[in-house]
This record gives sequence, C-alpha cells and structure tokens, in this order.
Amino acid sequence: MTSESVLETLQAFMAERDWEQFHTPENLSKSVAIEAGELLECFQWGADGDRERVADELADVLTYALLLADRLDLDPEQIVRSKLERTARKYPVDKAKGRSTKYDRL
Amino acid sequence: MTSESVLETLQAFMAERDWEQFHTPENLSKSVAIEAGELLECFQWGADGDRERVADELADVLTYALLLADRLDLDPEQIVRSKLERTARKYPVDKAKGRSTKYDRL
Amino acid sequence: MTSESVLETLQAFMAERDWEQFHTPENLSKSVAIEAGELLECFQWGADGDRERVADELADVLTYALLLADRLDLDPEQIVRSKLERTARKYPVDKAKGRSTKYDRL
Amino acid sequence: MTSESVLETLQAFMAERDWEQFHTPENLSKSVAIEAGELLECFQWGADGDRERVADELADVLTYALLLADRLDLDPEQIVRSKLERTARKYPVDKAKGRSTKYDRL
Repeated sequence: MTSESVLETLQAFMAERDWEQFHTPENLSKSVAIEAGELLECFQWGADGDRERVADELADVLTYALLLADRLDLDPEQIVRSKLERTARKYPVDKAKGRSTKYDRL
Repeated sequence: MTSESVLETLQAFMAERDWEQFHTPENLSKSVAIEAGELLECFQWGADGDRERVADELADVLTYALLLADRLDLDPEQIVRSKLERTARKYPVDKAKGRSTKYDRL
Repeated sequence: MTSESVLETLQAFMAERDWEQFHTPENLSKSVAIEAGELLECFQWGADGDRERVADELADVLTYALLLADRLDLDPEQIVRSKLERTARKYPVDKAKGRSTKYDRL
Repeated sequence: MTSESVLETLQAFMAERDWEQFHTPENLSKSVAIEAGELLECFQWGADGDRERVADELADVLTYALLLADRLDLDPEQIVRSKLERTARKYPVDKAKGRSTKYDRL
C-alpha cells in the first residue's frame, strides 16, 4: 500500500494529463454541483439507492471537493473542524437535540 | 491538538444532538446537493469567489459527504482511489492529455 | 396543431404511464435539481455550451418544474410574477442598476 | 390584468436594471442549479415542504429557466413538447407503465 496521500495521487493524475488548466475554482465548483446531482439521482424516486452506484458518485463529489480545497490552499479537515465549531454555537445541544429545525427557528 | 479523526468528531457532534435519525442516505444526498448549490453561488455571476465564503460552503459539502460515506460504511479515501483507477482507464494519458473532452468523444 | 396546453399534454403523458404515483413534491424537487445539474454540465469546463444539448436539458428542468407547480396547485406564470414584484422591492432600480450585488449589500 | 407575457415582464425588469450583461448562458445555468438547490432545501429532512416557500423557490427556478430559454432563442413550450415526444419513444406505454425504471433497463 502506498504512503502517498489521496491528494498527491490526485495531483499526479491531473498533472500527467495536463488537466490543471481546466481546474479554476469556478469550474471545480460547477463540477461539485454536477456530481452532487448525479449522486442525488441514485435516490430520485425513493429512499433506496444502490450502494455501489452511490459510492461511485460520492467518489466524484469528493474528488472535485478535494481538488477545489487544494486549488485554494484549504485543508479539508481543518475547514470541516472550523465549521463544526461555528455550527456548535448555532445549535447548542440543549436547544437543538432531536430537532431538525433550522437555527433561526430554535 | 486532538488525535480524534474528523469523522469521530462529526459522529460525536451528531450523537450529542441526537441527529443521526435524520441522516438517511437519501437525506444526506439531498444535503450534499443543497450545499453544492450554495458553494456554486459563490461564483454565480463570475469567476471570482470570496475565499472565506467558499471555504465555509465547501466545508458543508465535505461534512455531508463524510457523513454519507460513514452511513454506508464506505471509506472516503478508498472510494476516491478506486474511482481514479477506473477514470485512468477511460482517459489514457496519450488520448486525454490537455483535453477536457468527455471519454466517449476522445 | 393542438390547442392542448403544455400542462395538459404532460398530464396525459404521465397518466398514460401511471407515473403520477412517483411524482411526490419531494421527488419532483429532487428531479428539478438532478436535471439542473445536467444542464450545468453543458458548461462544466467553459462558457460555451452546445445549444441543442442545453435545449434538451432545459426542457427536462422545465418539465419537472411544471409538474411540481401542478402538483401543488400553483400557477407557474402567477408565481413568477409575484416573485418579480417582491424582487423589485429588494432591488430598486436606482440602487441596483448595473450591479450584480446581493440586496443585503446594496 | 396585463396582456404582457411573463417573458416580456421579465425582459423589461432586467433591462430597467441593466442586468442583461450578467445573463450569459453559463451564468443563467449556474443560477438554475443554485435555485434548484434552494427548492430542494424545502425537503431536506423529509417529504413535507412548506407550500409558500416551495412556490417562492420554484418561481426562482422558472425565472432563470425562462431567461435562459430567451437568451438562446428557445421557446419553452416547444422544447418541452419536443422532449416529450422523444421521451415517449424511450418509454413506450406497454413497457413503462407503472414503473420508475430508467429506459435502458426496461
């Protein structure tokens, strides 16, 4: 098993094909939305999606998301943790527990 | 700094608020698409998006994507690598280099 | 040429195939988002989309949007006009002319 | 009640604010996807969306869809009818009745 990170593998893949030129932040954001639509299509008519198909589309969403983070010098783990801290303040446990209500209506 | 993984932090956050009940694969896929739309909004009228706002929305996309992977017992890194291998076969370097053309038209 | 409205033609098409059962408001909203992603794919790597392909995907977005309006007894023309009136108040001409800025920053 | 069509009202609204400059086909497609995400948000955690909020977001989807059709000299009604004819061939009644299966698996 390689000790190369997923990001390094992605970067090498894109460089090899000279594809970085297409990876503007805007194009990558469009790509995340496009793949998110394909992921959603697994559940178009109901709650049961085929696990393999979901894995395939989710991989595409994650791929473009990681490329976008890299393009803007963002650390995926760090921005998720940061956001979680902000979310914790908007949804204190005592008010939000067991409720899907948006924070401005808690 | 904690040695707790991002996923463990997310799981604890959701359990604390008793939110797992809302996290069906379908609802999580809808959430990925919703946040992907908010990410795209950073570039609605042009190519320059505010980096902080993009980081915020990208964090939301990644959060729901990680929760969905977890819900279906999928390893995010492994499914991205798997997909990359399949993509390499659809886009061999000699044919695809420097071109954004879809594989069925290479 | 028929004097049947587009909506009547859509309704007949769906009834003939016994498809109304799948057309819950939620499923139709998912469908609008899915097709919107396919429309966006026409512009994934740049500003020039193939007109025929755009027409095809836009037709799908419109189809599901019209079905959703019908399902909720909404008149498409009337809700667009209503929303435009509200938008006019958020974006008075003297403040908004020539600017793509969101209303809370005018 | 005005005899001005919805499109004419939209065109006047946009011209008055000098907004046509932002309405490239690409920007309008991004906008359709963005609003489709907001529409989907009405159903993020379940099947029941607030009818007024759905009407508001659906109006936004329709608005951008109509502007995009106009920008590319496409007649919304005609492209929906055209697409329906093609869909009828992919989903003949005898094979597709009562089934949500995609055409390549009928």
